[in-house]
Amino acid sequence: MSGVFITFEGSEGGGKTTQVSLLAEALRARGHDVVETREPGGTSIGQTLRQLLLRPHTGRPTDTLAPSAELLLMLADRAQHIHEVILSGLQAGHIVLCDRYADSTTAYQGYGRGFDLAEVAQLNAFVCGVCRPQLTFVLDLPVAVGMERAQERRGTAAVDQFEAASVSFHERVREGFLAIARAEPERVCLIDATQDIEAVHTAVLAGVRKHLPTLL
Amino acid sequence: MSGVFITFEGSEGGGKTTQVSLLAEALRARGHDVVETREPGGTSIGQTLRQLLLRPHTGRPTDTLAPSAELLLMLADRAQHIHEVILSGLQAGHIVLCDRYADSTTAYQGYGRGFDLAEVAQLNAFVCGVCRPQLTFVLDLPVAVGMERAQERRGTAAVDQFEAASVSFHERVREGFLAIARAEPERVCLIDATQDIEAVHTAVLAGVRKHLPTLL
Repeated sequence: MSGVFITFEGSEGGGKTTQVSLLAEALRARGHDVVETREPGGTSIGQTLRQLLLRPHTGRPTDTLAPSAELLLMLADRAQHIHEVILSGLQAGHIVLCDRYADSTTAYQGYGRGFDLAEVAQLNAFVCGVCRPQLTFVLDLPVAVGMERAQERRGTAAVDQFEAASVSFHERVREGFLAIARAEPERVCLIDATQDIEAVHTAVLAGVRKHLPTLL
Repeated sequence: MSGVFITFEGSEGGGKTTQVSLLAEALRARGHDVVETREPGGTSIGQTLRQLLLRPHTGRPTDTLAPSAELLLMLADRAQHIHEVILSGLQAGHIVLCDRYADSTTAYQGYGRGFDLAEVAQLNAFVCGVCRPQLTFVLDLPVAVGMERAQERRGTAAVDQFEAASVSFHERVREGFLAIARAEPERVCLIDATQDIEAVHTAVLAGVRKHLPTLL
């Protein structure tokens, strides 16, 4: 595989989607072929799974995913995404930028929902195979700030099941992302996402120059 | 858990659905509370997954599940099914009869698709936890007979992705079910499903009397 795989991770409200677009633009300006994608929902089948995973929170048991079903649907979405989008992009030599990937499963389902971290790592390894990011940006911000931003963006739309989760859940998720960044500094670049968009973008570019100097 | 969990397994065309109904009727006639259910699709969320898993075969890549996504969706369906239906039925002391369960994953995704059997066993164990059937009927029939029966039943409806699979795939699946029956005779009761419905039902009743003598 001759392409480059870069992922963006972190809690809601950190500006991942915006930063994926800005980096894609910068890389295209240097003549690179870039694929922008996201999880869950980067494929047609994944769109259906995304709706199940992010359905509005009603509290009705038949609308509520079992934690293990949530974990497995996230992994199924990833398996399909790798198969249809990521692998072919990398094999074609493109730069693939992905908004959320395996680290989100570790943070949300492992740290957040409390699944055994070794088990989650094993499941992620089963699904990802050789498809591992060379570089990951974790856009970090305090839970209160992230929840406020997510609420602003949502407006009057229904709260999805992750947004409806408790502050302590989101604290555990954030701690998960921070732990991943501490454990793998050679892959993960931690960025303070309370900064404005331009400052975060500058930090992302600096991260690319440091970790993948041939790209920029 | 005070209930009893019985599963029906085997290739398409073996009459599992009919036999679940007939056994449910016989058990209800003895005063038992019986839950009849099936996989995939035993829950509202599972219905959506069933549509993804059994969608008509078009051959278009974006309509075609990656084998690993198929495996994980089957497991996600099971996780939700256990959470919503099976566990509560067993906890209420009911007899739960399920049309396909973990052995189908072993046979179709393990033997059929070629996933490592130890890996499939580990995934099934992760999802099922303590929710294991006390008794399983494998309704066995030659592949050609099963495919013919499935085709008759389907009429002019579109072929789903499993029905569209090759004869050799279905041979491997059948071999999988037979291997499971050989490996666990204390749990699995193998029945010749080329017999007529009444004869198969009689064999099912005999199996229940032998393995779970207090029920009938």
